[in-house]
Amino acid sequence: MNKIEHIGIAVKHLKDANTLFEKLFGIPNYKVEEVESEGVNTSFFKVGDTKIELLEATDDDSPIAKFIKKKGEGIHHIAFDVDDIEAEIERLTKEGFTVIHKTPKKGADNKLVAFLHPKSTNGVLIELCQELPLPSK
Amino acid sequence: MNKIEHIGIAVKHLKDANTLFEKLFGIPNYKVEEVESEGVNTSFFKVGDTKIELLEATDDDSPIAKFIKKKGEGIHHIAFDVDDIEAEIERLTKEGFTVIHKTPKKGADNKLVAFLHPKSTNGVLIELCQELPLPSK
Repeated sequence: MNKIEHIGIAVKHLKDANTLFEKLFGIPNYKVEEVESEGVNTSFFKVGDTKIELLEATDDDSPIAKFIKKKGEGIHHIAFDVDDIEAEIERLTKEGFTVIHKTPKKGADNKLVAFLHPKSTNGVLIELCQELPLPSK
Repeated sequence: MNKIEHIGIAVKHLKDANTLFEKLFGIPNYKVEEVESEGVNTSFFKVGDTKIELLEATDDDSPIAKFIKKKGEGIHHIAFDVDDIEAEIERLTKEGFTVIHKTPKKGADNKLVAFLHPKSTNGVLIELCQELPLPSK
């Protein structure tokens, strides 16, 4: 794992949270992106070489809506940047971790992603992500 | 804020968690430190230029013991590195955040630290930390 790519934070209202985190970091967000497959609107801030991703549910069935209902707003997951996500999935499965997505899927921010189940990682929801080459124009 | 200095993870058993996170990251921890004032044993891993700090309560009254009782094991806080912690405390107080420690205190890993109350930061417990000069030998 190369570095912490981002930390995901579950928020109820993206607009309000954006204002709050702008004040906190003293900088504006640099991107807003809807990820339909996950049922979320996202907003990204850059702090050092890591990102903070705010996550707002777009419907009541999305994982973020369920998380907030159960635990309230707050830190949702940590994402680690990896060079070869398929090799990491294989390595971690062999080490006994429960990988939710045996085959990585397309996530926000031009990434291939896979999650580890928090039951196998001390209650921490962990995302692996591999940067995809930018699409040629 | 310069970067994410570390992410704190509350664990029940530091020894078991160490073994787990060693497998996860594929590297051993680089330091273990008891912080008596906080009632915790800590263990540090380096991932990129950020650290993961595992936190185990040393007594039932410590904030980590209370956190685990209420929310279970998992991500406890995010710490941001700042150059001038007193200036940041003043700036964030003016911005309307609730700073728990108006005067920074000595934390783990040779730092001055102060926490923001999660009620003012979307449920996220945030630590500010400023590196202290190493004591001369």
